[in-house]
Parts: sequence; C-alpha cells; structure tokens
Amino acid sequence: VRRANSHQRSWATSSPALQLTLAQEGGRRDALEASLREAIRDGRLGAGARVPSTRALAADLGLARGTVAEAYAQLQAEGYLTARPGGGTWVSDVAASTVPRRPPATKAPRSERFSFHPGLPDLAAFPHAAWSSALRRGLREAPAASLGYGDPRGRAELREALADYLARVRGVVVDPELIVVCGGFRHGLSLVARVLRSRGARRVAMEEPGLNDHHNVLVAAGFETAPLPVDEQGARTDLLPEIAPAAAVLGPAHQFPSGALLHPERRAAAVAWARAAGGLVIEDDYDAELRFDRPPIGALQALDSEHVVYGGTASKTLAPGLRLGWLQLPANLLDPVLALREVEDVHVPAPDQIAFARLLASGAYERHVRRMRARYRDRRDRVVEMLAERAPRLTPVGISAGLRVLLELPAGGPSGAELVEGAARRSIELFPAGRFHHHGDPMPDGIVLGYGALPDHAFEAGLRALGDLLAEALAD
Amino acid sequence: VRRANSHQRSWATSSPALQLTLAQEGGRRDALEASLREAIRDGRLGAGARVPSTRALAADLGLARGTVAEAYAQLQAEGYLTARPGGGTWVSDVAASTVPRRPPATKAPRSERFSFHPGLPDLAAFPHAAWSSALRRGLREAPAASLGYGDPRGRAELREALADYLARVRGVVVDPELIVVCGGFRHGLSLVARVLRSRGARRVAMEEPGLNDHHNVLVAAGFETAPLPVDEQGARTDLLPEIAPAAAVLGPAHQFPSGALLHPERRAAAVAWARAAGGLVIEDDYDAELRFDRPPIGALQALDSEHVVYGGTASKTLAPGLRLGWLQLPANLLDPVLALREVEDVHVPAPDQIAFARLLASGAYERHVRRMRARYRDRRDRVVEMLAERAPRLTPVGISAGLRVLLELPAGGPSGAELVEGAARRSIELFPAGRFHHHGDPMPDGIVLGYGALPDHAFEAGLRALGDLLAEALAD
Repeated sequence: VRRANSHQRSWATSSPALQLTLAQEGGRRDALEASLREAIRDGRLGAGARVPSTRALAADLGLARGTVAEAYAQLQAEGYLTARPGGGTWVSDVAASTVPRRPPATKAPRSERFSFHPGLPDLAAFPHAAWSSALRRGLREAPAASLGYGDPRGRAELREALADYLARVRGVVVDPELIVVCGGFRHGLSLVARVLRSRGARRVAMEEPGLNDHHNVLVAAGFETAPLPVDEQGARTDLLPEIAPAAAVLGPAHQFPSGALLHPERRAAAVAWARAAGGLVIEDDYDAELRFDRPPIGALQALDSEHVVYGGTASKTLAPGLRLGWLQLPANLLDPVLALREVEDVHVPAPDQIAFARLLASGAYERHVRRMRARYRDRRDRVVEMLAERAPRLTPVGISAGLRVLLELPAGGPSGAELVEGAARRSIELFPAGRFHHHGDPMPDGIVLGYGALPDHAFEAGLRALGDLLAEALAD
Repeated sequence: VRRANSHQRSWATSSPALQLTLAQEGGRRDALEASLREAIRDGRLGAGARVPSTRALAADLGLARGTVAEAYAQLQAEGYLTARPGGGTWVSDVAASTVPRRPPATKAPRSERFSFHPGLPDLAAFPHAAWSSALRRGLREAPAASLGYGDPRGRAELREALADYLARVRGVVVDPELIVVCGGFRHGLSLVARVLRSRGARRVAMEEPGLNDHHNVLVAAGFETAPLPVDEQGARTDLLPEIAPAAAVLGPAHQFPSGALLHPERRAAAVAWARAAGGLVIEDDYDAELRFDRPPIGALQALDSEHVVYGGTASKTLAPGLRLGWLQLPANLLDPVLALREVEDVHVPAPDQIAFARLLASGAYERHVRRMRARYRDRRDRVVEMLAERAPRLTPVGISAGLRVLLELPAGGPSGAELVEGAARRSIELFPAGRFHHHGDPMPDGIVLGYGALPDHAFEAGLRALGDLLAEALAD
C-alpha cells in the first residue's frame, strides 16, 4: 500500500495532469472533478490512460476515499472515465478529442463619431424609466399564468391595447383576435411569406428601390421577387395586374427610401388588384406616426381588411432592440400563421408584452411618440437648412416624414460611393441609395441620410461635420 | 347659398351618415374625419355617394371651411373619397367593402383547480423583484446602442455570462463567439434543423417516446423522423449507425418522459456515431440543473463540441414566458444559423437579455435555481409518499430529477385516458403518457405527472385531491 501510495503521489504531483486548488469554492469534490475534466479535455490525461485507484488518489491528495469515488462516479456518468470489468478506471476513448477554444474574434470597433444610419431612431431617447416602471407594475399585477407558454398570438391585453391604438391612430380595421404580436416587421413578413409559399405562391412584388432586408426574407422563403417601380406617387401598383404576383409588399404611408406617399389612385389600384386577382397586400407601416407636414395617412388596410395584412413595429418609435412588432391579419391567414409560430416557439417574451401593453394603455406611448415627432421635425428642419447653406446643389427628397431624407446627387459631381468613402475618412457614416436596389435597374445616384440615429447632444456637431464634407465635395 | 346650406343641413342632420361629437378629444377636424370614415366603412355612405361641398358642410356644422377641406383632403389621401375633375367629391368605389368585426372568440375558461402539467415550473415563484431590478439597472447602465438592431447572436455580455455559467455548472465546452441566444429550445432546434435540411439532410432520430413539440418542429422543417427507442439506460444510441440519420435529438441529462439518464456507454456510442458518420447530436439540456439525488451530470457536448449542439433554456428554471434559450454551436454551424436568424429578424429583446445577463453575473440566477431545486425535491418527496400511501400499485419512474414523474399503470386497472377523464371531472389536469408517442409503437400505459406547475399554496390540496382520485380509481 505504501509503495502504491508513493507511486500515486508522484503521479499526482509530478504530472501536470492534476492541479488541484482544494480551497476552490464548491468543495473539494467539485475541485477534483473539475481538474480531472480539464486534464482530460486538454489532453494532459490522454485516451486510454489509467487513473489512480480511489484509495491511492485519496491518500495522495489528503481526501476521503468516498470523495474520490464520488468524483470518479460522476465522471463515469459524464463519459470521461470508464471502469473496466477487470478493475481499474481509465480515460475513455471518446473523451479525448480536444477542441481548443478559439480566441474571441476581434471586432472592428465602430469608430464613427457621427452615424447617419437611415433606419435608427435616437436610441438615447428610449424611455428607460417608463419602460422599467411599466414592467415592474405589470409583473406585479399580472397573474402568474402570464409567464407560462401563453397564447401564440401574444397576450390578450396587449392585443386589445394595440387594437385600440391602431384603430384610433392608424385607422386600421381592427380585431384583437386577428392580431399577432411578433419580433419586428421582418419576423411577421417571414411568417406570412412562408405561409403563402406553402400554399404554392411563387412571386412577390416589391418596391424597387426598396428594403434589402425584405428582399432577403422573401428569397429565403423561396420566392422570386418582382420589382414594382417607384415614382413620386409611390409604388406603381397600377402594374400589379400585369406582374401578377401572389402578394405585394408596400409601404403606403412612407416608401423606403424615396419617402413617397402612395397616391390615392395607387391605393385604390392596389386594393382593386388584390380583390380581382385574389392577391394579398402586405403593408409595412413602420414609421407612419412620424409625419411632419400633415396628420399621418390612415392605413391602406382600412380599405380592405380581407386582402391586406397590416404590419407595424415599435422599432422606429421606441427601439429596434425591443424586437416588437404586430400583424393585423385577414381571418383566413390566422390559423396557418399561428401553426408556423407554434412550431418555431418564437413568441415575444411575456415581460416585454406586459410592459408595452401598459405603455399603450396609459397613453405614455403616444406621449413619447409626440415628443419624438417634434424632435425629428426639428432635426429635419435643421438638415434642410444645412443643405440649403452648405450644399445648395443637393435636392433633399421625401422630407415630410420619418427619420431620413433622400439626397439625389447632381450629375458630374462625386458618386454616392465616393461620398460614403470620404465621409468614412472623417468618421461619418453615410449610406448610398444604390444599396437599396435589388434588380439592377438604373436609379439616380444618391445618399439616404438618416437624421434619427444621432443622440441629441451630438446632432449639431454631426450636422456641421456633414456640412463641411458636402461643401468641399460638391464645390465643383 | 342659403338654399344649398339648408339642403346640406338636412343631409347632415337627417341622414345617420354623420354623427359628430364636436367636443371629441383631438379636435373638430379629427372628429369629422372619424365620422366620415366610420360612415363609409359601415356602409351608411355607400360607394359613389356624393358628399356635400366643403362650403356647405362647413356652414351646416358650424366649422371653418378650411377645416372641412382638410378633412376631405385627408380622406382623399387615404382613399375613402375621390375628387372628380368636374368638381365635387364622392365616396370611392374601393372603400365600400365592409368587413364586420367578428365578436371576440369566447375562450373556454381554464377551470382546472389543480394542474399537474409536466412541463411547467411554479410560475408563482418567478423572481419578479430581482428581474425588474436587474432590468432597471441594466437599462440605466447599458449604452444606448444596446437598443439598436444588435448582434444576431445576442448581446456579448449575455453570451459571456452564459459561457461562464455553462462551463461551470454544466461542464459545457464554451466559446461565447459560438453561443446564440434564442427564443427557447424549440426555436434553436428549428434554426439548426432548417440549416441541416437546406444542406440536404432528410432524417433525424428522435427519442421514442419523446416530446411532440420537437417532432412537430422537425416535420415542419421537412424532416422524416426516425424513432430511437428508450430504455432505463436512456435512448438506444447504439442503434444510430443502423438508423443512419443526419442528426439525433437527445435529452442525455433527463429524458422526457421516462426520466432516464443516458448511460455512459450510450453517451460514448452517440459521440462515436457522430464522429464516424459525420452526424450531429442536438442536446436538449432543458432541466439538468434540477437533479435531486446527485450533482447534475455534465453536458454530453463536452465530449465533442464539434459534433454536438448544446441547447439550454430558462423555461424550467425561471419561466417559459421569458422565451429565452441558448445554443452552443459547432463552429461550422454558426454562419448558416445566423444567416437564417438575420433574415427572420427574430432576436431576443435587448431588455430581457440585459436583465438575464445581470441575474447570471450577480449569482442571483444560481441562487434562484438552488431554491427551486430544494422546493421541487420536497414536492417530489411528497408525491412519492402520497403514492405509497394512496396508490401503492403505481410505480413512479424517473423520480430523481426535474418537474415530473412517470406513473406506469398496472394491467387490468383504468387506462391513462380513463384516469385523465376522471381527473378532469374533479378539476384536476393530468397528462397521459400516450401523448408522447410519434410512431405508434407500443408503450406501457401511464401518466406523466408534473409536480412543478402548482403554486406552493395549492400543492398539498392538489396532492390530496389526486390521492383521492387514484385511491378510488385503483381500488381492488
């Protein structure tokens, strides 16, 4: 015994296989297990190596034999060790594959001082206190069952609050039973698109130029997309009968990136097409509340709630990080959309639904939207003034709403790509309009200039830096 | 003018088309617009009807003419009205389709006094105060950019906190760069399954009996599922080479519904198969922390992190309503999983990620899990005692972990379906084991009895009611 013991001692101390820190939190057995796992994983204890007997290792390490036996049993259960019939314990063959941990990817730090991202609101203005307080009260008052698996459409009180809001503010024809809360507009579009695809639909019309993200959703769902040209009256919905898609994705209240408002005749044409052809309009109502020159235009869905899916989001009014959107569905789409949703288990977390329902019901959401609308209108005014002063050759388009303007670049000047590059050298992030083309049609070169993303304290400085850039770049 | 005015007055007052409440909040113009929309939608103003001139209606209603003109312009923009070239304003043809709002579906109220749902934790024990406080502090301290679109894998500090926790508590081979935060295990499974399917995989092996939900996810992703029989050593992974699936979904730490712990040889067989065949194991580690008789068994993934996807969830430890889960992926699956996720836009909301990361980092999550483990162990003890007293012919299986036991019913007694029915008459919710069969193989009849779902204050009463039922049903 003595000899075996001293042999084992040398195994434990001379080999680096076991480096025990017995004071380690969680107790001696945990420490022993952790050391053995580590040694096996990183190859210090190779496959097929025999480990000391429990008695020997216990004596060696000054542990109770039962402690070592328990650790071995645990590691056998986990597959690291194997006890062989003839006696003795060995490192399993299976445990010997070692995958070194990769070093963390070094991310290029975002160094832009000034971002003019066209799709972001001012995140510094997120109403933290109101959100936290709505959540705290909501959790306290919600029945415990709220935290169960829940209705795949979303919580009833949120759907009721949304129905009230959408009817009043957006003129949507509402039915809380047909509202589905989802993780942003793209998630809703993906659900509807996959349902249509499973019914055999093959082609969806998309505004061109339009949002790449939507294009990607449709392609991933197995669709071919057909371009729907956009002019100053919005998407050419009069072409839908000719294009003959199964569905059309439209932004009637505020086309991206042109900023066009869909003309009443185009609204009528979209609905007339959907009725005649059995088509579906998917309405992206992403920022209609942020209209400056007139009251927001009511949702297209109100003209025909059986042929239009209405989709909204809190990404522009609150924050994209909430991943909070909603669909008002035609009745015949509810069951298939829910079936898909249940399978994927992707519901919006209950706490967020509780908090948002309270913000809607208390009016705090609308007060926030009004405050932000005033803020963005002031910024829009400052952008237009700056352009008139520093770059009078640039015509801002679509200045009446939202978080951005489209700058069309005059012929003979720098290209959008050149401007973006020049901006990057000054830590200014700009976005070329060319990025929003899917079908390679020609489009006037331009910049989609977002004025929402900067926090208030950086806005004027950012505008000055941009003005300097444009003045120099466009000084013929 | 006088005559026209009196004509229009009679139109406005004698017809029910316009019922204005001029004191309505939001101003007179809003009220006029709302009344007109409503009248057009519900058919009181039919398609093609001519509306009064702005002058006439203004005089009639005592409004400024400009107010009426603005309301008409708004309704034209929205498509309800059309101004014809020859003058005059008409109700558009397109606006005339009326869809009556459906009455809200009357939901059957859940009347069970006592639910023995096998998949629910005690929702009344959700740590509201800790969650709200973690969120409040997290939101205050997180940079504003946290609320932007964010990393599709999930927030870096949450992935770091998960990596630390999973390595320490579950023995997972971690790499925060390969962790993807998702909306529960099913969401993660759906992502991985669709990626495999897009690479041409056709068959996935599933434990039989096992979870219907997983079966549904795989079928929806286009897979054929192959049954992997389960015995007291867990899933028959030794059969994988013969079945030759592309992947196998396993619950090594706690098989559902049998409660079996995967035997070390079966663990080794699963990994050996995956290596030899290039297969993938998808490990569902849904409640491994809740093990009563011994320390939790480390994750299978630790044996081969290149061939095992590890999936975890907060659904059993905190609440399913959080819709919070995570995957630790093999490196070669990261990019395709993220591509799918980006397209669908389904990320977990930033506030929830912030709150959970704080609970993990502060140790509050582990303290909660320890508290709940003690509570569930006590309940398990009480269930076993009750069965010994009231229904000694029933053998509870899988009593060592989790939120449930499996009751195998003796031959000649009532069937599982009969017991479930008898229970429902006493407002007790039971779940028959037969529900967890996908391939129609024979299985001993039984009940999957969950003891987690009841709130503490109802647990003893629920247990008594269940004891009464079982004693009567199994008498003689």
